[in-house]
Amino acid sequence: MRKLVALPVLSADALSSVAYGPEAMLAVLVLAGTAGLDFTTPVAAAIAFLMLAVGISYRQTIRAYPHGGGSYIVAGDNLGRIPGLVAAAGLMTDYVLTVAVSIASGVAAITSAVPSLSPYTVPIGAGVIAALLLGNLRGLRQAGALFAAPTYAFVLAMLALVAKGLADAADRGFHTAAAPPLHAAEGVGALLVMRAFASGSTAMTGIEAISNAVPAFRPTEWRNARTTLTWMICLLITLFAGVTAVARLDGVVPRSGETVLSQLAHRGFGSGPMYVVTQAATAAVLLLAANTAYNDFPRVLFLLARDGHAPRLFLRLGDRLAFSNGIAVLSVAAAVVFIAFRGDTASLIPLYAVGVFLAFTLSQAGMVRHWWRLRDRHWRKSLFFNATGCVLSALVLVTAGITKFTSGAWVSILAVGLFLLVTTRIHHHYEEVRAALRLHPHAIEIPASPGGAPPAEPSPAAEGVPPAAPSAAPVRPMAPPHASVREDEESPEEIRNLAIVPISTLDLAGMRALAYAASLRQPALALHLSPGEAEADRFRGYWDRWGDHLPLEVLVTPYRATVAPLVHYIEALHAQQPQLTLTIVVPEIVTRRRRYRLLHDRTASRLRRALRLLPKIVVTDVPYHV
Amino acid sequence: MRKLVALPVLSADALSSVAYGPEAMLAVLVLAGTAGLDFTTPVAAAIAFLMLAVGISYRQTIRAYPHGGGSYIVAGDNLGRIPGLVAAAGLMTDYVLTVAVSIASGVAAITSAVPSLSPYTVPIGAGVIAALLLGNLRGLRQAGALFAAPTYAFVLAMLALVAKGLADAADRGFHTAAAPPLHAAEGVGALLVMRAFASGSTAMTGIEAISNAVPAFRPTEWRNARTTLTWMICLLITLFAGVTAVARLDGVVPRSGETVLSQLAHRGFGSGPMYVVTQAATAAVLLLAANTAYNDFPRVLFLLARDGHAPRLFLRLGDRLAFSNGIAVLSVAAAVVFIAFRGDTASLIPLYAVGVFLAFTLSQAGMVRHWWRLRDRHWRKSLFFNATGCVLSALVLVTAGITKFTSGAWVSILAVGLFLLVTTRIHHHYEEVRAALRLHPHAIEIPASPGGAPPAEPSPAAEGVPPAAPSAAPVRPMAPPHASVREDEESPEEIRNLAIVPISTLDLAGMRALAYAASLRQPALALHLSPGEAEADRFRGYWDRWGDHLPLEVLVTPYRATVAPLVHYIEALHAQQPQLTLTIVVPEIVTRRRRYRLLHDRTASRLRRALRLLPKIVVTDVPYHV
Repeated sequence: MRKLVALPVLSADALSSVAYGPEAMLAVLVLAGTAGLDFTTPVAAAIAFLMLAVGISYRQTIRAYPHGGGSYIVAGDNLGRIPGLVAAAGLMTDYVLTVAVSIASGVAAITSAVPSLSPYTVPIGAGVIAALLLGNLRGLRQAGALFAAPTYAFVLAMLALVAKGLADAADRGFHTAAAPPLHAAEGVGALLVMRAFASGSTAMTGIEAISNAVPAFRPTEWRNARTTLTWMICLLITLFAGVTAVARLDGVVPRSGETVLSQLAHRGFGSGPMYVVTQAATAAVLLLAANTAYNDFPRVLFLLARDGHAPRLFLRLGDRLAFSNGIAVLSVAAAVVFIAFRGDTASLIPLYAVGVFLAFTLSQAGMVRHWWRLRDRHWRKSLFFNATGCVLSALVLVTAGITKFTSGAWVSILAVGLFLLVTTRIHHHYEEVRAALRLHPHAIEIPASPGGAPPAEPSPAAEGVPPAAPSAAPVRPMAPPHASVREDEESPEEIRNLAIVPISTLDLAGMRALAYAASLRQPALALHLSPGEAEADRFRGYWDRWGDHLPLEVLVTPYRATVAPLVHYIEALHAQQPQLTLTIVVPEIVTRRRRYRLLHDRTASRLRRALRLLPKIVVTDVPYHV
Repeated sequence: MRKLVALPVLSADALSSVAYGPEAMLAVLVLAGTAGLDFTTPVAAAIAFLMLAVGISYRQTIRAYPHGGGSYIVAGDNLGRIPGLVAAAGLMTDYVLTVAVSIASGVAAITSAVPSLSPYTVPIGAGVIAALLLGNLRGLRQAGALFAAPTYAFVLAMLALVAKGLADAADRGFHTAAAPPLHAAEGVGALLVMRAFASGSTAMTGIEAISNAVPAFRPTEWRNARTTLTWMICLLITLFAGVTAVARLDGVVPRSGETVLSQLAHRGFGSGPMYVVTQAATAAVLLLAANTAYNDFPRVLFLLARDGHAPRLFLRLGDRLAFSNGIAVLSVAAAVVFIAFRGDTASLIPLYAVGVFLAFTLSQAGMVRHWWRLRDRHWRKSLFFNATGCVLSALVLVTAGITKFTSGAWVSILAVGLFLLVTTRIHHHYEEVRAALRLHPHAIEIPASPGGAPPAEPSPAAEGVPPAAPSAAPVRPMAPPHASVREDEESPEEIRNLAIVPISTLDLAGMRALAYAASLRQPALALHLSPGEAEADRFRGYWDRWGDHLPLEVLVTPYRATVAPLVHYIEALHAQQPQLTLTIVVPEIVTRRRRYRLLHDRTASRLRRALRLLPKIVVTDVPYHV
């Protein structure tokens, strides 16, 4: 990607945070009335400094991880498995909240302009999540001019807004306009200021996006990525400081029903086209920010699954080469959060900072360790920058966790804890299974012998067969029977088979199953369930004429149960002859249309479920297509 | 069942209707203010007459159907398949609404006594439905003293209430107390009176319960059932007329927050223990009424499934011999209706009458046809009673359908229509499948030949084997191989097999699958997916040492897809060699705990799904237990 394309695409998340960060900060300060608002400048300055420090810190990460240094990788590489998982937990909650907060804020930008839509906040937001879900399942990728436009439009609108605001303020000699009469609910105190700081820090979310995506840049990748990061940080600080300053100068404070940005735009641009453009650009960039989470969340899940910390199904690519399962999980989680908080940005903000700064802190702590171990040319400088970023991030994390605990941070902390619990359990399980499946030690040694005896008798199909592309038809899959049937050799696991065919009526589906069982050239037995003795005799009569000489066993069961008596029979048979491998061959009717499936007994899958814990039972369904 | 037990158990549904029927009638009349209330007596008299007529009509049904004459059976027997289905549709909506309305009314009885609970109407009702679901899944049966008590308590409380109300009224010389000042929203008109009539008729729901349950009585069953029905109708008319009269005399009208019954009880009994007992008995009998639907709904679904009109899964008895699937469907449907209407009895009433009277009308029309065909001793009298009941029920049906259409009856009519559509489609499908599975005509003729050649060579296991109880171990299921493998004969469907084993890693699970495939003594082929050429070569190397001489095919697929390339390969192979039956033998890891299942690829079921429309493909999973 060229830098001018990468900048808007990768910084949509960070820059769009300006739409809610300053407002979140002001919303806390205003609780202390006019006296609280006087703290706007110092708090904003602290946040701007934090942005600078974290930005410089991530410049070091980009240099050290030119192949992409997400928090999970950096923390896992340098600090170990558990810190990596904690960072991943922070990231996952961060991404879920990015979607929820960005959409909440984007809908607020729309309802500020069109207040009549505000009762429909939740349905609109849910609709947007559904649209993102579908778009991403269909392989929508964010790149190119289409995705660059909203970010540039938003940046330009914000710069114009700040310039207009500053010019207006200059006209009045930078005299601060009076805020509307305020009711001071709380006094000014350290706690309030810290809360405001923690809330305002949500303007920093998304700052790590560039360091994750270094390989997407043109060569020399890490240099270009660093330059882009520097631009982004400068823009972010400018917009954040500018919006905060103009809001302060204009005496604008958060109020319900209209965002601070909308109020500023109304003051600066009136209600004309410029206002509409500003609101539209804000909504668009927030939507784009939500979409970035759709790229990042499934990727982190993929990495977790690759390392055995998440279910393997997150490794799968869907038809359109998108990680469908991760996308679905993100959508469901974001929708639940969005709906639970009724799409209210202010209620979601307290949840947000914890995850973000958890990932920041661990990522930068990992970098500190990295430089300490590596000690290359610039290691002292880099270590210093990363350590500064780490300490500052940790401070925000602790501040947010404590001051916002009751107002929502506990949800995020709980989510991180649960995530850790589940991922470590999953990892433990996968390790256990791997150990259980390993080929036995004495067996493993043989292939490990270096330059051992040449493989005797390579199998005919294995050598020189060109790798078949999925669509290429295989050439000679039929092996001569003697190649696979080795009756005279002793196989490592000697298997003696008995095929059992449960048959309820003598119809074509049942006949097919019987023919299949017979074709296996193994001992076979048909099993019939009969509601009574008379019916049983009648069936035996049919069987003598039609049963193809296969032995028949008839079970008389008074109730119309089908699966339970079969299961009992098979269990008893297994207990009596445990050396036998039982292959249950079930006739299964397959209908062309899926909706008719419910109409047919799915005996095979029910049997499979009922018998899953019993060893040496193989359930096979022989389909008959109607 | 003794009559004194049968009466309360079978008439809970009908008698409990008194809790909402009179109120529903008054709620319509009161719309026209005091002038509307003047019509209370004539409308109530018409409903009482209707009860009498329908009651006498059902006495005829009991005599004609001593084995139980539900509307579906009576209408289906006498009028044909479609009228039977329409009656069933009416019944099904009736049962769903019985649950919803009874619970709504029962919760209203509780919240009338404890108004602070009224915001929790929906959760309380949903909890009751969940409790009914669980209780019935666990095989709760309604019988015995436990279930008789609430009905008797309710009847006694109502009789006491009526007696007290009449005594008080006698004290004032039967002077009608003034109703509270009423705002007349509508004028008195024929439409209003008809709506009141239709609403009040909901007091008749459940009247058919006894005729469904004739075989449960002591001999002579039909005589005892008739007597019980007569008692029930007398009680029902007494309670209905009594409650209406007392409400009229006391000037009680429906108001939100307190039921009419609760108002009457407050007036008659104050707020002491008698009041509490009355409300508790009302709630209990309504709960019991809801529970009767849990016996009837699954039974009708069973009958529909038996006749091929509903999915076969409704034939199944659960572990506790309850029709679990029907119970679940009823619970979900009732919960949806209850929640959608926020547990408000008044909103549910307009939906109720249509289904009930649809079933009544068709059932009695069926009886008319029955007598006309049978012409036994009393046929003229019986036909007259049934015809009267039928015409009156049809009048109510049409009245309810028209006057309540917009206020909710359309939902029931739509439900009946959808039900008809779905059941006829299902029936059509089952018929098609039956035709497609029938053994070929020339083949069928042989077993049909009467007294044909004696069955040559009865199979060894078929004769003289006592029917094995589910727990009895089978004695000699192993047939000698020659009995099942008939290589020299030409089977009707000659099957040539190829086993394909997709194998991703050489572990114990894979080895077990390979051994199983080899044990089938059929040509076999292993299939490995490799992400690249180098990995493919490495796997071939392992295979030469470990692959047990089985031919190996390696597919190189760039993406981490597992199922799609396998499906493509198998499809191509099937296209190339359509005569082959392909058995895909998939190693499958089985974990003891269910919650770990998500962690393992369920390749077999995904393959099965992907290949389900292709003929001659059998997917087998060989379990490996960890």
